[in-house]
Amino acid sequence: MGIRYEDFLDLQYEPVETDLVCAFYVEPASGMSWRDAAGRVASESSNGTWAELQAEGSVRDLSATAFAIDEGDNRLTVAYPDALFDPGSMPQVLSCIAGNILGMKAVDRIRLLDCDWPAKLTQSFDGPQYGSSVKSELLDAGDRPVTATVPKPKVGLSTEQHAQVGYDAWTGGVDLLKDDENLTDQAFNPFEDRLTESLARRDRAEDETGERKGYLLNVTAPGDEMLERVDLAAEHGCEFVMVDVVTTGWAAVQQVRRRCAQTGQAIHAHRAMHAAFDRVPTHGVSMRVLAQVARLCGVDHIHTGTAGLGKLANEDTVGINDWLRADCHGLRDVLPVASGGLHPGLVPQLLDALGSTIAVQAGGGIHGHPDGTHAGSIALRRAVEAAADGVGMDDAAADCPELAVALEEWGTETPR
Amino acid sequence: MGIRYEDFLDLQYEPVETDLVCAFYVEPASGMSWRDAAGRVASESSNGTWAELQAEGSVRDLSATAFAIDEGDNRLTVAYPDALFDPGSMPQVLSCIAGNILGMKAVDRIRLLDCDWPAKLTQSFDGPQYGSSVKSELLDAGDRPVTATVPKPKVGLSTEQHAQVGYDAWTGGVDLLKDDENLTDQAFNPFEDRLTESLARRDRAEDETGERKGYLLNVTAPGDEMLERVDLAAEHGCEFVMVDVVTTGWAAVQQVRRRCAQTGQAIHAHRAMHAAFDRVPTHGVSMRVLAQVARLCGVDHIHTGTAGLGKLANEDTVGINDWLRADCHGLRDVLPVASGGLHPGLVPQLLDALGSTIAVQAGGGIHGHPDGTHAGSIALRRAVEAAADGVGMDDAAADCPELAVALEEWGTETPR
Repeated sequence: MGIRYEDFLDLQYEPVETDLVCAFYVEPASGMSWRDAAGRVASESSNGTWAELQAEGSVRDLSATAFAIDEGDNRLTVAYPDALFDPGSMPQVLSCIAGNILGMKAVDRIRLLDCDWPAKLTQSFDGPQYGSSVKSELLDAGDRPVTATVPKPKVGLSTEQHAQVGYDAWTGGVDLLKDDENLTDQAFNPFEDRLTESLARRDRAEDETGERKGYLLNVTAPGDEMLERVDLAAEHGCEFVMVDVVTTGWAAVQQVRRRCAQTGQAIHAHRAMHAAFDRVPTHGVSMRVLAQVARLCGVDHIHTGTAGLGKLANEDTVGINDWLRADCHGLRDVLPVASGGLHPGLVPQLLDALGSTIAVQAGGGIHGHPDGTHAGSIALRRAVEAAADGVGMDDAAADCPELAVALEEWGTETPR
Repeated sequence: MGIRYEDFLDLQYEPVETDLVCAFYVEPASGMSWRDAAGRVASESSNGTWAELQAEGSVRDLSATAFAIDEGDNRLTVAYPDALFDPGSMPQVLSCIAGNILGMKAVDRIRLLDCDWPAKLTQSFDGPQYGSSVKSELLDAGDRPVTATVPKPKVGLSTEQHAQVGYDAWTGGVDLLKDDENLTDQAFNPFEDRLTESLARRDRAEDETGERKGYLLNVTAPGDEMLERVDLAAEHGCEFVMVDVVTTGWAAVQQVRRRCAQTGQAIHAHRAMHAAFDRVPTHGVSMRVLAQVARLCGVDHIHTGTAGLGKLANEDTVGINDWLRADCHGLRDVLPVASGGLHPGLVPQLLDALGSTIAVQAGGGIHGHPDGTHAGSIALRRAVEAAADGVGMDDAAADCPELAVALEEWGTETPR
């Protein structure tokens, strides 16, 4: 029995409960019919190849099926049988559904848009340990959005300067201090020094404010070193770690998640490099799928954009955040983080678009405050509380001069 | 002292020896001048942000400098100071040069095209343990290309069928049996069974042919499990491991490389998912940079395409392979692997384009042979030897009926 492309196409097929169903945007290559292109996508991403083969036995049980074609929307839907996958291994899953097919000549453009994750495969992953419950389990954010800041300049502050920025921000009102994505372990601010100095200030800030505060320590590193950094953070009482998940890769993210099951630390996911494959709307892998992958792998927070506000281009932040909060076979949710060019004046629009179960992170929008970090932090916290309570910014600014100054400085415009 | 975008642009700047110099393709956003866009790219990828800040001291030492703009070619060149980087951490390096900048609204499209790696940063990475020396250190390929095959169907063969395909291929003449990218540890062909069965056949094939043979065992998995798989492979005498480097991620690849320094195993890099970010020529990260990253991280082989032959779209295979073989501050080279829709009739064109210091891998082009895998393997080996010796295919086929049948079946055309 040979396997041929047409064996991977069945427009009558109805997915079974254990199938992983994937939606793709596809532009078939010139001269390639939709049916041929669809069969090739399903074939290459499961168990076909270009030549007819002498294959026997159970191999058909592992074939994907292209079962829906919408030429108007360039949309192809493919069902993958559960047996194709190595349970709990995200690299293996991605090598099927987002692997070689993205480079096939049979299609000019192809993008993995969305996945419908079945229970069995989903539950083979760890999922988040906390998700949005960090608000009450690790912090005192109650019903309002969590607030966070990242010292700016991103890199170049000394350890002492960095810790001082953290102290100023925490005592001003933000919940979380976050390292920026390219600050890990460099000579101007070594990892262990930064960890201990920052936590010492965190403890002081907690004493002075009576609130729990957190430090999103960037542990991103080669896998073995990353585990050492996670362990060191745990030993020093750091309840959060930050991983730059795309540049790190899912194999190491999953490894960190397993370690965090022992240490009790929450994982904050930065997503630098995502735009390499999700920005061109007709090709690559969508941010929506990246967010799904991150949830299965078990991050507790992930950056999903600002719904069009701010300095970075965004995919569908609202839809992605809704997915992160919706039930997914019993996995915990993920707390979405809005960041990138935010400042207090943008907070009402942001919360209108995204609701209160988010983290609002500002960097330049706190430290660029004319009166400095502490004032900027007060302004952001007040803006977030007011917006969550439905209080207008001008009213809120009436009893918060720091917010008045921020609104005066930046207005309610998106920076460019 | 504030930091502003224009502080990151200096067209008089001459990079110093320790700078990492990166070339980007850039399309500035509508209404954004080239100078503004260039400053923003350098700023966001080093230590700037959108707001003016009160920064003091040494932060300027960590700033990137946009120093060359070629508007005609949409080319921007940026120099990054060594102090910005965490030595030996590829995730951190990528978070700078291929991170947030890819999603900035200030540019409509941006692609990291090429890097000029400085000695100091380069030497903080392990680099390959073998590179092309696998030809003589682990195999008996001499001056000809290494030959490899991957069982087809990619997944679905039982362990016994898989091992038999390996035996048929090895005894027919190929050097390397490779797992396909989505075959890791599934119920129809469990990892440890496959390892032991395949190596038993490898030993028999070595005895019968008098040649050393290798098995590219796919160890791709979450980081901790991947190390266990590497160790198990080493215990059983498997001299190669295969890692699907993009879906796995660089943190875990680096971790595997360090383990392989102890076990002596060579690393074969599959690159599923690369086309998610390298296929659209105006955006993302080039395959050229991916290959550079892989070399620094220490893979011994990497797939770089077929110079336009075969079923997958290719970037500049010739230029990438040249880079992988050229000196890079004393790192070993990487053996490029050509694969994806290859068969014997394409080998002369392939070697004309790429030379003999490559691995030629065929899947369907061996197992789809009308007389099966063993005959297909004989045909490929003969085609490779003949082409390397400058012998025409028809002459070679005269005393190799298996090659004659392959040429009859597939001709010298690229499959579609």
